[in-house]
Amino acid sequence: MNPSVLILNGPNLNLLGAREPALYGTGTLAEIEAACRAHARGLGLEVDFRQSNHEGELVTWVQEARGRHAGLIVNAGALTHTSVALLDSLRAVELPVIEVHLSNIHRREPYRRHSYIAEAALGMICGLGARGYLLALDALAEIVRRPGPGP
Amino acid sequence: MNPSVLILNGPNLNLLGAREPALYGTGTLAEIEAACRAHARGLGLEVDFRQSNHEGELVTWVQEARGRHAGLIVNAGALTHTSVALLDSLRAVELPVIEVHLSNIHRREPYRRHSYIAEAALGMICGLGARGYLLALDALAEIVRRPGPGP
Amino acid sequence: MNPSVLILNGPNLNLLGAREPALYGTGTLAEIEAACRAHARGLGLEVDFRQSNHEGELVTWVQEARGRHAGLIVNAGALTHTSVALLDSLRAVELPVIEVHLSNIHRREPYRRHSYIAEAALGMICGLGARGYLLALDALAEIVRRPGPGP
Amino acid sequence: MNPSVLILNGPNLNLLGAREPALYGTGTLAEIEAACRAHARGLGLEVDFRQSNHEGELVTWVQEARGRHAGLIVNAGALTHTSVALLDSLRAVELPVIEVHLSNIHRREPYRRHSYIAEAALGMICGLGARGYLLALDALAEIVRRPGPGP
Amino acid sequence: MNPSVLILNGPNLNLLGAREPALYGTGTLAEIEAACRAHARGLGLEVDFRQSNHEGELVTWVQEARGRHAGLIVNAGALTHTSVALLDSLRAVELPVIEVHLSNIHRREPYRRHSYIAEAALGMICGLGARGYLLALDALAEIVRRPGPGP
Amino acid sequence: MNPSVLILNGPNLNLLGAREPALYGTGTLAEIEAACRAHARGLGLEVDFRQSNHEGELVTWVQEARGRHAGLIVNAGALTHTSVALLDSLRAVELPVIEVHLSNIHRREPYRRHSYIAEAALGMICGLGARGYLLALDALAEIVRRPGPGP
Amino acid sequence: MNPSVLILNGPNLNLLGAREPALYGTGTLAEIEAACRAHARGLGLEVDFRQSNHEGELVTWVQEARGRHAGLIVNAGALTHTSVALLDSLRAVELPVIEVHLSNIHRREPYRRHSYIAEAALGMICGLGARGYLLALDALAEIVRRPGPGP
Amino acid sequence: MNPSVLILNGPNLNLLGAREPALYGTGTLAEIEAACRAHARGLGLEVDFRQSNHEGELVTWVQEARGRHAGLIVNAGALTHTSVALLDSLRAVELPVIEVHLSNIHRREPYRRHSYIAEAALGMICGLGARGYLLALDALAEIVRRPGPGP
Amino acid sequence: MNPSVLILNGPNLNLLGAREPALYGTGTLAEIEAACRAHARGLGLEVDFRQSNHEGELVTWVQEARGRHAGLIVNAGALTHTSVALLDSLRAVELPVIEVHLSNIHRREPYRRHSYIAEAALGMICGLGARGYLLALDALAEIVRRPGPGP
Amino acid sequence: MNPSVLILNGPNLNLLGAREPALYGTGTLAEIEAACRAHARGLGLEVDFRQSNHEGELVTWVQEARGRHAGLIVNAGALTHTSVALLDSLRAVELPVIEVHLSNIHRREPYRRHSYIAEAALGMICGLGARGYLLALDALAEIVRRPGPGP
Amino acid sequence: MNPSVLILNGPNLNLLGAREPALYGTGTLAEIEAACRAHARGLGLEVDFRQSNHEGELVTWVQEARGRHAGLIVNAGALTHTSVALLDSLRAVELPVIEVHLSNIHRREPYRRHSYIAEAALGMICGLGARGYLLALDALAEIVRRPGPGP
Amino acid sequence: MNPSVLILNGPNLNLLGAREPALYGTGTLAEIEAACRAHARGLGLEVDFRQSNHEGELVTWVQEARGRHAGLIVNAGALTHTSVALLDSLRAVELPVIEVHLSNIHRREPYRRHSYIAEAALGMICGLGARGYLLALDALAEIVRRPGPGP
Repeated sequence: MNPSVLILNGPNLNLLGAREPALYGTGTLAEIEAACRAHARGLGLEVDFRQSNHEGELVTWVQEARGRHAGLIVNAGALTHTSVALLDSLRAVELPVIEVHLSNIHRREPYRRHSYIAEAALGMICGLGARGYLLALDALAEIVRRPGPGP
Repeated sequence: MNPSVLILNGPNLNLLGAREPALYGTGTLAEIEAACRAHARGLGLEVDFRQSNHEGELVTWVQEARGRHAGLIVNAGALTHTSVALLDSLRAVELPVIEVHLSNIHRREPYRRHSYIAEAALGMICGLGARGYLLALDALAEIVRRPGPGP
Repeated sequence: MNPSVLILNGPNLNLLGAREPALYGTGTLAEIEAACRAHARGLGLEVDFRQSNHEGELVTWVQEARGRHAGLIVNAGALTHTSVALLDSLRAVELPVIEVHLSNIHRREPYRRHSYIAEAALGMICGLGARGYLLALDALAEIVRRPGPGP
Repeated sequence: MNPSVLILNGPNLNLLGAREPALYGTGTLAEIEAACRAHARGLGLEVDFRQSNHEGELVTWVQEARGRHAGLIVNAGALTHTSVALLDSLRAVELPVIEVHLSNIHRREPYRRHSYIAEAALGMICGLGARGYLLALDALAEIVRRPGPGP
Repeated sequence: MNPSVLILNGPNLNLLGAREPALYGTGTLAEIEAACRAHARGLGLEVDFRQSNHEGELVTWVQEARGRHAGLIVNAGALTHTSVALLDSLRAVELPVIEVHLSNIHRREPYRRHSYIAEAALGMICGLGARGYLLALDALAEIVRRPGPGP
Repeated sequence: MNPSVLILNGPNLNLLGAREPALYGTGTLAEIEAACRAHARGLGLEVDFRQSNHEGELVTWVQEARGRHAGLIVNAGALTHTSVALLDSLRAVELPVIEVHLSNIHRREPYRRHSYIAEAALGMICGLGARGYLLALDALAEIVRRPGPGP
Repeated sequence: MNPSVLILNGPNLNLLGAREPALYGTGTLAEIEAACRAHARGLGLEVDFRQSNHEGELVTWVQEARGRHAGLIVNAGALTHTSVALLDSLRAVELPVIEVHLSNIHRREPYRRHSYIAEAALGMICGLGARGYLLALDALAEIVRRPGPGP
Repeated sequence: MNPSVLILNGPNLNLLGAREPALYGTGTLAEIEAACRAHARGLGLEVDFRQSNHEGELVTWVQEARGRHAGLIVNAGALTHTSVALLDSLRAVELPVIEVHLSNIHRREPYRRHSYIAEAALGMICGLGARGYLLALDALAEIVRRPGPGP
Repeated sequence: MNPSVLILNGPNLNLLGAREPALYGTGTLAEIEAACRAHARGLGLEVDFRQSNHEGELVTWVQEARGRHAGLIVNAGALTHTSVALLDSLRAVELPVIEVHLSNIHRREPYRRHSYIAEAALGMICGLGARGYLLALDALAEIVRRPGPGP
Repeated sequence: MNPSVLILNGPNLNLLGAREPALYGTGTLAEIEAACRAHARGLGLEVDFRQSNHEGELVTWVQEARGRHAGLIVNAGALTHTSVALLDSLRAVELPVIEVHLSNIHRREPYRRHSYIAEAALGMICGLGARGYLLALDALAEIVRRPGPGP
Repeated sequence: MNPSVLILNGPNLNLLGAREPALYGTGTLAEIEAACRAHARGLGLEVDFRQSNHEGELVTWVQEARGRHAGLIVNAGALTHTSVALLDSLRAVELPVIEVHLSNIHRREPYRRHSYIAEAALGMICGLGARGYLLALDALAEIVRRPGPGP
Repeated sequence: MNPSVLILNGPNLNLLGAREPALYGTGTLAEIEAACRAHARGLGLEVDFRQSNHEGELVTWVQEARGRHAGLIVNAGALTHTSVALLDSLRAVELPVIEVHLSNIHRREPYRRHSYIAEAALGMICGLGARGYLLALDALAEIVRRPGPGP
């Protein structure tokens, strides 16, 4: 069976397309999910694509990833900047993590320039819109196939 | 039908009357709700009055406000100072928002003097106790009737 | 005789209507005064409405309020952020004070987000334009009639 | 009937034993619960031992403690450093609270050295592993039996 | 009639010549005024040259400049670093403003390195002594004659 | 003729006795003036004792002290912490200055712990109530009689 | 022979019972010593209980602990917050150290919230009064008996 | 002719493979260049791949990119954190820029967590090793082909 | 018997006269002691005048003051800025304390502008040289005779 | 022979006219050079006008100015904010320096508000566009002719 | 007689060889003393080599150096970072001082990167182990022989 | 053949003797080079002595040191405080590095007290003038001959 990737989306990403389109683009989260599924198929990966507005639910999903998934792609939305709990779950799960942001967080409000997630992530892709998810899948596909340790 | 206002109350506001009465007064949240309903009726407004201890639930309620409500009154309690997710939902919903606090947050602990909610709010009323909700309804009634953009 | 409220306006508020209308609206200070007088009358309050560009004059007016007025509404303009002297006079006069700002000071330059006045005020109403004065009158009317201590 | 103690565990503590064992030890949360129950029995105390990844759920449990429990032991995990809501609930419940951490938070990342919980706690025990829970029970047993006010 | 320039001097500039001559030079304010008048005449400009120790008076003079003057040269002295009220008046008057300082404020005490005035000024000339006023007149003459918006 | 000392009092010191007596004592400013006059007489000094709520007026009085007074005692009240203009006038006047505060400013709000006046003062006496003025007179009497430079 | 524990008390702890009893309780240091001796006996431990107002003496005592004691309990009092020398001696001695404070240092002045001692300690017990010493003995008894490295 | 991409490498990137391989990997810069050329060919892009230890040379190369290249990929090495001049050149050239780093700069020394380059970049890819260059090429290929403005 | 005052001098004050005379004057500590004794005699006070380079010795002397002395005058020298232990002893002794410094500490290096001693002192006299001790005696004489609480 | 002035331009100033014209104007550096030459001729000055993107080259040019030039006008561009080396060269050369900026750096990003160059400059002219160079020539002409020391 | 050098060692340096040998090396303080004596003999210098854990004792030794020693070498250990008293004694003694540290303090914890001693020292040698003492002797030998002022 | 040491000098060190002699001494860089050569010869070392005003050139020289030199002595001048690129090259070259400064950088402007170079250096010698180079050679001679790893 193909290795599986868990793609997590944090609060308000369910609003994509409707929310501040100048900043986040006009595509919806469902369109991103579809693009991820298609792209993953080409890479020989399964995708489990989820969104939640609840920090606790995201933490639980990360915890459950061990043994089920080969890696994670995480766009934690606003929780990127505030959730030590999510960071702790990502550290605990010991799987390769790639952080994705639609906008370039380094050019936004000061409180959006720091990421707790980054402390548990192999790398970050930001500012490249929905394409960032696909690039993260490309990178994760290679990492998942390569033997050796996680982050 | 009358325009409707969503009044959101954050964590621990369900304890009102019991919790630190010297700071927050002896009225209960149910009494505030009743006062809001009566006052709104006089202003020709419907009121949807809610409380949650869950950031995620509050975020979801804000997201669902679009198309259902004409404006929001938000007393986010402790989340005022920590929740970027709630701020993001308020920005996304693009409705007029008035922030209310029972106590004067500018005279409390330093970490209570900063509000993320304020970045998405037209204005703030604080330190005037339960009456702050009614004043916010007054202001929102006027804004809702006036043509033109939100915040 | 009706209880009286002193409404103080700080530097540059005499320019209202002409000054940065996108930020402060197009109404003049005279129009706000007229609205306050009409509104106060309905509340059974007298109004003494003043403006000065001089910190010292504002301090003196506050000092003289004791025994003459039952409460104050203060929009100190730029002095909000710089005048410890005005704060000291407000503390000394021991009357209920409500702070008003036309714009939402929490969304402006960092140096406009801190208020010395707040340390002596029961509460703050900001971002609701000229209506903030009227809401402050509503709140003060109630406080003035209620027995018990000031701020 | 014996007085009861509510022992609350925050996000990711359900992973104990699996998560970063060099830092948190190899014992599981179930083992800590069992040790607490046994130890409490010897002290004549009941124990209600819970864990949640949801801030809102922890807040609600704290709110409900009034009238049911004689004191709380709180290991809030990552929420220690970010949750003003949890602090507010602990303040409101007005019961004796002892804060516990498995690791010595004073020797970790800067953002783990500050505790909001501490503002509502009688004291803190940290860095002594699972034994910290038992020491907290010892201390709470004494406090619960002693007449007089909470924190 | 020639366009007119308002030249404002803040607190203690009336002491020039007597005050810390190593820092501010030995020329008096009257000599600077005379030099400005002569220089302005050559540029086809009128000059209204004033000094006050009162922030409120300076604010009022700035407010009155609209419709009377074509531009301002402002050496606010110590108020440069403390007066948000003066800044607000300069913003409101919407005329071209050039900030002048006799000494190089960037080489003095830290609290003299920040200028509120700068936020409303086209530019700054500092450290060139009394000549800075004349250079500012040169620049303003050109700006005043050039069609288009102010700062 | 006896040498003269200018004693300056800043904003709100005219309220002494009425204003926050727990902090500032119950004596009035007139009583302090009387005590100073009596004490100065014993030291062979004239006293010119003034109070103003206006920064600009205080600055002007300091400027005029040169040639009229042998030294200054300054209790600038709230301006201690905000007025660079007053500091500049004290530096310019080149007379011995002793700073006095009724309360111990080092134990009050953070913004009251810094004094601009101190940069131009020989020394400071604080926290000793009205007696501080008399001690300052003692010290100044000695300095005035001693040949040599000012601060 | 029983393993021995060195219990060190820093400056002013000799005043216990007399000093700020609302903060530190009414028990004396002699009473704490007696309680420690009794408790240690039950744990099969010897106790060497000392107090000094001299940083240098405390440093020397820590240095001499090696080879004589199996562990240390340190309540360094005010030196907790200022003494790098004491930290260095604790690091050098390479024995298990538990830090104790009578009050909850996390709720006191900002400069009392940081502990240099914590960098060399296994853990901290604070806010539980004299009982904190006994809990530390419990924890140390277990650690001393357990094979393996110190802090 | 194919659109061309300028790939710039800053100081010390010529040492790749030899320098701190645990951090930067064992591949050389020549190998990255070869991989980029091959990958770009598949995307229908030309590649101009350069490295310099001189800030001035990098600035000049960026300036010359206008009219010659359709986009830039910039790994500025240490200059990422110190060079405002490089930022200014990237802003001036008004071409799409993607920032690449081999390591995850968000997990390194504090001074490596801030990027001046980010202010002029569409997005950043970091922590994914040499593959980051290829992902950046993928993203740039799409952007270059899409009509519309640059960053 | 006359009430007694303990006058404490911290490190390096034994060097007075020899040490940086431009800053501290040319008088020796013995001369200050003699002047204090003479002045105290006139005030009906005994004086116990001591100096130590040891923080621990100063702490012990303060502790022993209770019951022996009616007040303290403290020039803690460099320990003013670093010794929390000395502050704690002064708080514990609950006697009136006046802080004295020869130089104006508000005009020196930043680390000399903060005083821990001030937190336990009624007031401070600084910058007035050896005379500061005599003025402190004057103030203390009055306080000692006046009934009521200490600091 | 006429005295000569070295006019130095830092990185990216060669792009003037093309680069962000809303901020820097549409004139080219060649046009500024021509205007400077014409203006200098009228003042009886020679001009050596240079630009470099290399910090090292600018440093060398400054070093060589001694003995060749009578003064410097420096627009260091981005190096203004980052180059201590350029500051050191300007200090070493001991010639009068006037700093020029086209835009008002006090109104831009925080990192552009600090100038290392200012520490070695007599004064600064900013925000007046290309005219700033000519005003600096005016000022320098006067300084060069006046006997006495440099900065 | 040969000029004499006082070599002072602060707290915990008596533990050398035993304390954290990876950081401080395996040589003992006695071996350093012997090496210093031998090396000084070759330079024609006497050596007085001391160690204390007491700040007060070190301060006293520095005070006594005047007239007895020609210079000082100071390794103040932890007091480097906390002792203003030691700094004051070094300033007062007005002899050439060279600061030595075994480890490179610039690469250690932030609080070890600042040295109060440096303010009174000609220079610093750090990170070169016990050899640093010998190099300091070399430098001091030259300075002692050279006529002219101390630091 | 003798082992070789690369001695690098950063910007403006070519001005030695002429530049601020009170701070840097009157010797020229050529004289320092000659002294180094003579001293190195006595130690059995070759010396390659260079200076550049260009960061990029210094970086390149460091990169080329591997395999050619046995160690480096680096006086990076102003780049000490600003160049992460130079730090990176020193880290990459993995040779023993000793940092030298003519003046005591710990007593200068705040921005000169931090050294990026120190992160890659064994140790630092500063404040001892040109002799610092010779002491560094002494230390390096010993390190180069001793077997074992670099920094």
